[in-house]
Amino acid sequence: MNFKEDCRKRTEKIEEILRKYLPDQTGHQQIIEEAMEYSLMAGGKRLRPMLMKETFDLFGGKGGVIEPFMAAIEMIHTYSLVHDDLPAMDNDDYRRGRKTTHVVYGEDMGILTGDALLNYAFETACSAFETDPQNSILIGRALKILAGKAGIYGMIGGQVVDVRSAGCKISGELLAFIYRLKTGALIEASVMIGAVLAGAKEEEIGKMEEIAGKIGLAFQIQDDILDVTSTTEILGKPVHSDEKNEKTTYVTWKGLEKAKEEAARLTEEAVEELRSIGKECGFMEELLRRLVYREK
Amino acid sequence: MNFKEDCRKRTEKIEEILRKYLPDQTGHQQIIEEAMEYSLMAGGKRLRPMLMKETFDLFGGKGGVIEPFMAAIEMIHTYSLVHDDLPAMDNDDYRRGRKTTHVVYGEDMGILTGDALLNYAFETACSAFETDPQNSILIGRALKILAGKAGIYGMIGGQVVDVRSAGCKISGELLAFIYRLKTGALIEASVMIGAVLAGAKEEEIGKMEEIAGKIGLAFQIQDDILDVTSTTEILGKPVHSDEKNEKTTYVTWKGLEKAKEEAARLTEEAVEELRSIGKECGFMEELLRRLVYREK
Repeated sequence: MNFKEDCRKRTEKIEEILRKYLPDQTGHQQIIEEAMEYSLMAGGKRLRPMLMKETFDLFGGKGGVIEPFMAAIEMIHTYSLVHDDLPAMDNDDYRRGRKTTHVVYGEDMGILTGDALLNYAFETACSAFETDPQNSILIGRALKILAGKAGIYGMIGGQVVDVRSAGCKISGELLAFIYRLKTGALIEASVMIGAVLAGAKEEEIGKMEEIAGKIGLAFQIQDDILDVTSTTEILGKPVHSDEKNEKTTYVTWKGLEKAKEEAARLTEEAVEELRSIGKECGFMEELLRRLVYREK
Repeated sequence: MNFKEDCRKRTEKIEEILRKYLPDQTGHQQIIEEAMEYSLMAGGKRLRPMLMKETFDLFGGKGGVIEPFMAAIEMIHTYSLVHDDLPAMDNDDYRRGRKTTHVVYGEDMGILTGDALLNYAFETACSAFETDPQNSILIGRALKILAGKAGIYGMIGGQVVDVRSAGCKISGELLAFIYRLKTGALIEASVMIGAVLAGAKEEEIGKMEEIAGKIGLAFQIQDDILDVTSTTEILGKPVHSDEKNEKTTYVTWKGLEKAKEEAARLTEEAVEELRSIGKECGFMEELLRRLVYREK
């Protein structure tokens, strides 16, 4: 297996799907369609649709029903970044080396572009009812998961607590809550939707949710570790920023060594559980490890 | 028929449904659940869920499947107001005599509350898959309509063009486009979803969409008329504001008399079409007229 090459091919395919589901740039409202493309096609690891597709394949899913959901989850992830970058939120002018959406299109359009992407995610996912009406019950279930994990009991809930605790010392438990919801929830949704649409069993769906929860948390802990151990050159962003901002992180909470142990433990447990499903999953196993054991 | 009394009863029932579908106020993210309630329970005519329910009943709809959609459409209407009021948009501190959401909870929470309401609308509507799995195909179709009419080809599309043309002279055609999308689309969604979930025929769904489009437009034209003909005391907001802001309206476009004629023509056509469906619809007929022929 050549992981890098396999990963590149999958990413290319995902970008193709994203382009396919983006709206045409036409009509009086063309500017919003442009801004949606600008935000969505800004690069990124495409981790969520990739995990969704791998899980779908793992459980023997067939056909195109997964594609609108792959596009939808990336749209939801993107809208959350667009709104996070707004002046009233993190006030970031750059993301991945490009100007953020509100900087290019104006703050009002930044708000509306986020709204449009969130709404269009559901519109896109709903198109599956038309292409696969015989799977309406599974599609309905996948939609429920998507909305649930993106909402106040999922990603938005995590953002709210994160925003409200900015500048405060928080407990480790609250930190774990924020990580689980803000980052973990959409990763959980990705694998659960892949499993549901492939017709996986209840216990398999539950196991995938658990695996994703662990990887999501380990991913965030690794972020905290890199802020302490990496360099600005490698990360492409300032290091030691958590210390400077007096932020509670896994490293400040448990110490560097314990944080490393925790990330490793969660990852190994996740890989072990993935193997216990008893299917061929070499690429996904490697993907999970690389998500955590990364240098940037 | 005592219209006022009938209307009051229906509004009460809708408020009950909204409360039922609002999330519990619990957990670390409680503040967002509070803000959602603050925004959603701020009063208002509840026009969209009312039209949805009337249409559902008109076509013989039975059971509770309509209720999550009634809540969902009002959540979407509310999120659009919360985001419209933000400093980067209309920058309004008051709505219906109460402080707007971002004034009470902060600008960051204003953005997140709008996001939460939009997302929760879909989460709420998706709950119908669990309570009525046998209707999954109809529910899927209703969801598609909801997302479509709320999105870039519907309400958001109208907002985008409205925001982008603020302070500019625009053509009457563009004005009609904004009105049709910004206000008309959600009203169309309301009656279409009511019809779809009641199992109405294709041509009936199409007819209801047309009726709602006419009423939505007439409603907006009446807004323009009242800005010229009413008083601040009656309207509860400054009159002649369109003239002051040099805004293009139906009145500046066509003149007051023609605008009045247009509103009346659209309303009478809508009522005529409603009657042609051949069902008992006394309340809805009166409701449509009163939406347009109102004094405030």
